[in-house]
Amino acid sequence: MALDWGSSSLRGYLLGEGGRILERRAEPSGILQLPERDFRGAFERITAGWSNESGSLPAIASGMIGSAQGWVEAPYVGLPAGAEQLARQLAPVPGTHLRIVPGLAQRGAAHDVMRGEETQIVGALAAEPALADALVVLPGTHSKWVRLEDGRIREFTTYMTGELFAVLRTHSILGRLAPAGSGDSASGGAAFARGVAAAQRSAGGLAPLLFSARASVLVGDLPAAASLDYLSGLLIGDELRAGLATGRRPAALIGDPALCARYAAALEQVGVDDISILADAAPAGLWVIAQYASP
Amino acid sequence: MALDWGSSSLRGYLLGEGGRILERRAEPSGILQLPERDFRGAFERITAGWSNESGSLPAIASGMIGSAQGWVEAPYVGLPAGAEQLARQLAPVPGTHLRIVPGLAQRGAAHDVMRGEETQIVGALAAEPALADALVVLPGTHSKWVRLEDGRIREFTTYMTGELFAVLRTHSILGRLAPAGSGDSASGGAAFARGVAAAQRSAGGLAPLLFSARASVLVGDLPAAASLDYLSGLLIGDELRAGLATGRRPAALIGDPALCARYAAALEQVGVDDISILADAAPAGLWVIAQYASP
Repeated sequence: MALDWGSSSLRGYLLGEGGRILERRAEPSGILQLPERDFRGAFERITAGWSNESGSLPAIASGMIGSAQGWVEAPYVGLPAGAEQLARQLAPVPGTHLRIVPGLAQRGAAHDVMRGEETQIVGALAAEPALADALVVLPGTHSKWVRLEDGRIREFTTYMTGELFAVLRTHSILGRLAPAGSGDSASGGAAFARGVAAAQRSAGGLAPLLFSARASVLVGDLPAAASLDYLSGLLIGDELRAGLATGRRPAALIGDPALCARYAAALEQVGVDDISILADAAPAGLWVIAQYASP
Repeated sequence: MALDWGSSSLRGYLLGEGGRILERRAEPSGILQLPERDFRGAFERITAGWSNESGSLPAIASGMIGSAQGWVEAPYVGLPAGAEQLARQLAPVPGTHLRIVPGLAQRGAAHDVMRGEETQIVGALAAEPALADALVVLPGTHSKWVRLEDGRIREFTTYMTGELFAVLRTHSILGRLAPAGSGDSASGGAAFARGVAAAQRSAGGLAPLLFSARASVLVGDLPAAASLDYLSGLLIGDELRAGLATGRRPAALIGDPALCARYAAALEQVGVDDISILADAAPAGLWVIAQYASP
């Protein structure tokens, strides 16, 4: 059995032969949603009635459950790292048969960390071995741009795009003009594209643009209902501008299909139109890592 | 009498001959602090006992009190604009002798708006006429970089630096590692300078750097207590990078002396070391505009 256990959600998979998914479950028991830290209770609920169909494979989990705020801390592994390196450093949870996949830490000119994405990447590589030397993007709260080399993670950069959008929408003046519920509408496509284009053109980056999400409404050049779509375009457009500035083009988007589609649209707008989308890569990654770990 | 009436505070000045400040008062009656919109009550409290010493000059206010969320909306004036243009468009508040200074709107490639800063700039020009053709910076929640020409505001750009810092500190994962009360300490000077330097070097702008305020702590290269100073350095450093990319150097900082000193330190670090600081420019600006308005 395999768990994808992040900050806001917990997904469980009963895996059969060859990593086939026999059953999937989800509950909102992310580590930030368990204020009393009853990780054991959540673990028992989500795996209730599951025997270890896959025989000698351990039960395995990835994500923020292995952070300092999680159940048991699984210390970061250095780069480069792939499934084999991850499998060697699983952190056992005392009193259970569960082991937690460690995150990765990049030390050097640009310090960075990930937890959970490494497992999705292992899963994506199992599905598309041609990505072994590619640049892949995992959009999300903390988007990751990850350069692979020989099937291992070599280098990565985190963009806080999703979290920035959430805090600006909820807590800043930029969210105040927008009617409740706006910001995800299909009708906001034009405003989103306008944001992407503005970010692409900007010599000064995002900083001199952000306030235009408000000012454009106040001077009557942007409908208030579209201002969050424009803001989303600015933020994703700025991430693409910075990520593509390295000269490498991403070959795949890994993650939530709706969010990946939004990124694919923005990438197409800036001239990157041959990108594949891989969803739900965590269970395959957990399966591969568990196989490396089994005796 | 003159009022500097913003989102979070209300400052009142009784002005005498030549604009001399005879008395000053302040209360936390910013327009966001008056949920029942009792602007009249706040106006009467802050001016209680003041007669109009300056004879025929109107009582005058600037700032968010003239916004759509304020007492009476003072429609935006276009660019270029100086004291004379502002004085022509004062918005009278019915049933009082108070008039409100309009804000400025910039329409075109980069839409932008200001309310309150235009009055501070008029005041700064009265104190330092040599700024008539300079670039000036007003650091704050929404920092403004303002280019003056012939003593009038010609062009400006807003950076949401202060608000970004506040929402990231309070609502994002970047604030979670920092002990309560950190982020303003003098001891964080080294971390602040490190943030400024990182922003200055970054080819991709702020986006790929923001998460380093967390990752650097997690990999043990930055004390948690200094992470907010580092974040402040990243944000202010990115504002300077973008603002200086136009090729113009600012000649003055206008605003809160402690915040201006922080900006001056960052500017010195990037090679701009001959900048003057002007505090409390609003009353002088209100005096000048009121004089243009009097019959």
